[in-house]
Amino acid sequence: MLMKTLKIIKIGGNIIDDPKALDDFLYHFSTIEGPKILVHGGGKLATKLAEQMNIKVQMTDGRRITDPQTLDLITMVYAGKINKNIVTTLQKNACNALGFTGADGNTILSVKRPVKDIDYGFVGDVVKVNTTVLESLLAQHITPVFCAITHSTEGQLLNTNADTIAAELAIGFAQQYQTELYYCFEKNGVLINVENDDSVIEHLTKETYQDLLSQQIIVNGMLPKLNNCFYAIDHQVHKVCLGKPAMLYKQNSKFTTIQAS
Amino acid sequence: MLMKTLKIIKIGGNIIDDPKALDDFLYHFSTIEGPKILVHGGGKLATKLAEQMNIKVQMTDGRRITDPQTLDLITMVYAGKINKNIVTTLQKNACNALGFTGADGNTILSVKRPVKDIDYGFVGDVVKVNTTVLESLLAQHITPVFCAITHSTEGQLLNTNADTIAAELAIGFAQQYQTELYYCFEKNGVLINVENDDSVIEHLTKETYQDLLSQQIIVNGMLPKLNNCFYAIDHQVHKVCLGKPAMLYKQNSKFTTIQAS
Repeated sequence: MLMKTLKIIKIGGNIIDDPKALDDFLYHFSTIEGPKILVHGGGKLATKLAEQMNIKVQMTDGRRITDPQTLDLITMVYAGKINKNIVTTLQKNACNALGFTGADGNTILSVKRPVKDIDYGFVGDVVKVNTTVLESLLAQHITPVFCAITHSTEGQLLNTNADTIAAELAIGFAQQYQTELYYCFEKNGVLINVENDDSVIEHLTKETYQDLLSQQIIVNGMLPKLNNCFYAIDHQVHKVCLGKPAMLYKQNSKFTTIQAS
Repeated sequence: MLMKTLKIIKIGGNIIDDPKALDDFLYHFSTIEGPKILVHGGGKLATKLAEQMNIKVQMTDGRRITDPQTLDLITMVYAGKINKNIVTTLQKNACNALGFTGADGNTILSVKRPVKDIDYGFVGDVVKVNTTVLESLLAQHITPVFCAITHSTEGQLLNTNADTIAAELAIGFAQQYQTELYYCFEKNGVLINVENDDSVIEHLTKETYQDLLSQQIIVNGMLPKLNNCFYAIDHQVHKVCLGKPAMLYKQNSKFTTIQAS
């Protein structure tokens, strides 16, 4: 059966923190044909605002803790300022966008991460994606725009990794669509030499990934991202691409593609 | 033709600023049967946050001006913190809510208020309500939750009066539904004696309204609210009710009803 393609595109801080880059991206994003979903991270704005409001950043073992004040702050910044400015800019570009947290339409349910060695606070691990409402919107040519917040059945908003949200959405739709997951970041993809943006591995398989890991060629920051990629591929996502946003609209762009082998 | 009823319910600061009252209201709101839309104002949180962030409240002629910093702030507070906490609380109560600004789904278009004597800044006057997406969501038993922000075709978010948004939504749906508009506030309705909460005018017509105005019985704060009510009635809204939230769910509550004569 020939399935329609659905593109899930995730952008991060390097685009969100740069108004010109964001405007440019949103212009090009609007021109992408067919059903699509945008997922955005938070950028540095939340940290800046925390300083302004004297909210202390709590760290445990090098990782940020989402205490109640931080949760309020990211809800304001991610679901409010960033999400709504993206939505209205897309509307200006004739892309009928609609902003979402996982609470909206009960689209992404998560559970508060259980406390083991570290209590991460109000951080959610995704347990379920409900696609029905989103599907009806996609059928009406609406473009859902997700920020990195989900919720639990107890009415608790939860800070959730944007890469994970993108992967879970792609997996959630894999039965109805041929889903393609695009991770936009500051590099041209997975690099053999992290200092050389031309050393892109254009096709990455699980086997070459294992090889690169054992040779310690994959740097730390890429590990969770690539784990998300292969998790998606293992759960019927058609393909995952990593690279600069130009991979979406510029011919001959270099980027990394991962497909089921 | 017998049309289905759609309830548009607006709550303001007296509920939003009181967590217990809000929780209680949302519980009862969830039990209201049939299609419904919630519209919420902002409450005092934005003012409190402005102080914390050293954003000066600009006033001209006794009215607050929405400068760019204030617009950012209310976008964070209204569309972020307040809207998303309402949405997840409704979800907990088994009411499938979905948060909106007028930018989302391009549902409420407005124009920046033209500068005459006063420049109100980023304040929007509603020009169009697009009901198509909202209708498809209502048909799926989704409850839209609107905050008091709209947008212009230029990609500009605009601060917009919540009472007006509620009235415009009721008017926008008046061809498809028998729309009922409920303004919840701290009084039992329109009072003959503002000091006596029992002196409710249970049925207010345009004629009695004119009488009350000429007798100066309508106090200043009520004027714009009642203008919204009669504007809605003049534009095919079936009825408008004003009173405490209990009017929605408690038998024998006293409140004011306005219906087309």
